Amino acid sequence: MKYRKLCLPAVAMKHLLAVSVALNVALVLKLMHGGDEGVGWLKAEETLAGPPKKALQEMSSSGGVNGVQNNFESGLQELYINLDHGDPTMYESYWKQSGDKTTVVLSGWRSISYFSDTRNLCWFLEPDFANAVTRLHNLVGNAATENYHIVVGTGSTQLYQAVLYALSPPNTPEPISVVSAAPFYSQYPLTTDCLKSGLHKWEGDANKFDKNGPYIELVTSPNNPDGSIRQAVVNGTGVLVHDLAYYWPQYTPISYRADNDIMLFTVSKCTGHAGTRLGWALVKDEEIAKKMTKFIEIVSIGVSKESQLRAAKILDVISDGYEKKESHEENEPFFEFGYKEIGRRWRQLRAAAGNGKPFSLPDFPTGKCNFSGHEFETQPAFAWMECKGETDDCEGFLREHKILTRGGKHFGSRSKYVRLSMIGREEHFNEFIRRLSVINSLDSPLTKD
Amino acid sequence: MKYRKLCLPAVAMKHLLAVSVALNVALVLKLMHGGDEGVGWLKAEETLAGPPKKALQEMSSSGGVNGVQNNFESGLQELYINLDHGDPTMYESYWKQSGDKTTVVLSGWRSISYFSDTRNLCWFLEPDFANAVTRLHNLVGNAATENYHIVVGTGSTQLYQAVLYALSPPNTPEPISVVSAAPFYSQYPLTTDCLKSGLHKWEGDANKFDKNGPYIELVTSPNNPDGSIRQAVVNGTGVLVHDLAYYWPQYTPISYRADNDIMLFTVSKCTGHAGTRLGWALVKDEEIAKKMTKFIEIVSIGVSKESQLRAAKILDVISDGYEKKESHEENEPFFEFGYKEIGRRWRQLRAAAGNGKPFSLPDFPTGKCNFSGHEFETQPAFAWMECKGETDDCEGFLREHKILTRGGKHFGSRSKYVRLSMIGREEHFNEFIRRLSVINSLDSPLTKD
Repeated sequence: MKYRKLCLPAVAMKHLLAVSVALNVALVLKLMHGGDEGVGWLKAEETLAGPPKKALQEMSSSGGVNGVQNNFESGLQELYINLDHGDPTMYESYWKQSGDKTTVVLSGWRSISYFSDTRNLCWFLEPDFANAVTRLHNLVGNAATENYHIVVGTGSTQLYQAVLYALSPPNTPEPISVVSAAPFYSQYPLTTDCLKSGLHKWEGDANKFDKNGPYIELVTSPNNPDGSIRQAVVNGTGVLVHDLAYYWPQYTPISYRADNDIMLFTVSKCTGHAGTRLGWALVKDEEIAKKMTKFIEIVSIGVSKESQLRAAKILDVISDGYEKKESHEENEPFFEFGYKEIGRRWRQLRAAAGNGKPFSLPDFPTGKCNFSGHEFETQPAFAWMECKGETDDCEGFLREHKILTRGGKHFGSRSKYVRLSMIGREEHFNEFIRRLSVINSLDSPLTKD
Repeated sequence: MKYRKLCLPAVAMKHLLAVSVALNVALVLKLMHGGDEGVGWLKAEETLAGPPKKALQEMSSSGGVNGVQNNFESGLQELYINLDHGDPTMYESYWKQSGDKTTVVLSGWRSISYFSDTRNLCWFLEPDFANAVTRLHNLVGNAATENYHIVVGTGSTQLYQAVLYALSPPNTPEPISVVSAAPFYSQYPLTTDCLKSGLHKWEGDANKFDKNGPYIELVTSPNNPDGSIRQAVVNGTGVLVHDLAYYWPQYTPISYRADNDIMLFTVSKCTGHAGTRLGWALVKDEEIAKKMTKFIEIVSIGVSKESQLRAAKILDVISDGYEKKESHEENEPFFEFGYKEIGRRWRQLRAAAGNGKPFSLPDFPTGKCNFSGHEFETQPAFAWMECKGETDDCEGFLREHKILTRGGKHFGSRSKYVRLSMIGREEHFNEFIRRLSVINSLDSPLTKD
């Protein structure tokens, strides 16, 4: 066994920097009296039935996992904190306090038809949603919208597939290569190859790509998992697809108005509404936008109207918060909330992780945000953390301490790295920080570097 | 040219059976003063830009089509009636008159998370939707639910792909064959082969299938496009998938409780909410249900919560209409409305189409519905109509008369057949009937059989 088991009574207190006793007490009380929120807290016997797998897989294949359910008597140590997927539940509290402004009322006869707007190239795009998207981009200044076609999708995951379909030559003997610089979003290879398509094939790390012929390069900026600001790396004539899911002012300074040929966005990481399963693409070329629309017609005959109508409302409320702010308004504007909350979490994480021992976190350049005016470092939705020292399996190490993360190998990187979500519920994040501080305070093999 | 152009002044009035002058007047008034509903009415110059294609393709690729827009001066003859796709707008009037009972109110903080129920195998399935589905099946008696897993999908189109993924052996050199007896649903080949999958391959008409090895047979009953009640036709050991989208009491007598291994349903054809993009599968085998869930995770990380919550409400209102009917309730129960309306339309169509000349329609067996008690013939959501006589291209012939349908070749059949929707808006259907009666009344080449 590569590392010792955690032994709480032996904890050396001197390194417990970031977490106060008060926080622990508050947490214990919350756990004892708290609700049954389900996600994020997993009981050991229900999660660790099999070998380590990523949590979404476990959740969908293990036959179920329970939440806290007031079972405090079984001890905090038996509960898993799930930071594996980027479930953006951090935003729930903001929308709760925003009251009725975002409430959507849908009559039973609304949106019966497959069609939203037959005059639009993307005939299943709700005009209200298209308008709200354009308005928000124009407000924030993160992406150009003039002379772009908007294509709506069931999350940016479906739009990613639609882009691949649109860009793949239909009649070539070899599938087109799809690449992205490592570490890359773990979903790309899975989604690209799940049907063993003859149209396109995942070829991994763009830095190592040296094939001739056509290719598609994904440029994710800020990058998932590591938050880096990116440009294309392949020196060729391939087609670029920009995944800008995280190019919003709570995560990174908005330093330029993106005007790439194909840009992907998702409601999930912008507003936090992951359950809505809604994304949009801004596409310059009409033929590509048509083919993307065609793909979504073939695989799902359009996109939920309910999701579009609700998202339209929520995006408009965000814009209203800046453009129509009333003097008696107490609610913070949306991106300000996100910027402060994620900033606070990153400061907590950096303090708890130690300064390179036992964990290491990436540094980011500081920039001024044209939208908010704040000068700050990128503070990504995920932390890309390295286990220093002897431990090679960082995911496994953290799992031993009941912290679920996604190991580096899923992202085309080394297993000394993990990706962990920074945008889950506050109480889960705080408990994660407490545990990390405990690990840090131990005479752990991680510090024997 | 195979057939003469229609010449209205020369119309012989004797066969104008089904349509009164009053109807025409009402229609003209409606068109002059009516709204801009968009779908179903296409202007000639905007629709016939290219060679005949199916309308969904045109709509998504032609750069847009307009609705009526009060342009009556350009004449009724320039307006196309679109019966190509099965847009179930017939149901809109029912839901309008049902009032607030079906209204859904969604607060901004609801359903933020990716997860609906982590204890369920299908972790993105909303419990309310699962309960409403089970309740409705138990009420109607069209499908068993006990010992089945429910998997929710973005329409039954996504569930169809999930089934193929779940049933395709992952590591065989040859893709598994997918077949269905012709005429089959035109979406099957498109969706099966759109990505040139190495897992599965469309092999067409199940009646002609004679390959050895594993296969998947789609059994659609009542069948799309021809309304026939079906059993599997391949005499082998392949896996059966039952697409029961139309096995509801407005379309066909419910004569047995289906208990097949894999059954697909869709809100679109049950309640008419096509825009909701929501379907569900009833699956006996746990491993298959898990793999289907996995597929939907890979391609869209779940299914819109908004769609599920709204559909849950609507299904529950339908069930309430039977189980909690109050004495002052004036609204007809849902399936009764559908049964009467579609029955009326079929009677109109049979009268207008002529008795085998110039058009022929299939006959259906009569049966007693265990749910409603009505004794009736299947009255499908689509009519599968044959052009008799010399005309080989029935779709082209009807298009000349400004009626858009989907030609037989899309369904693996002959182009003497077309599929046309019976569940569009009432005014469109009535105008279609008027035009069909006009054609019928002419000395047309169709009658020279």
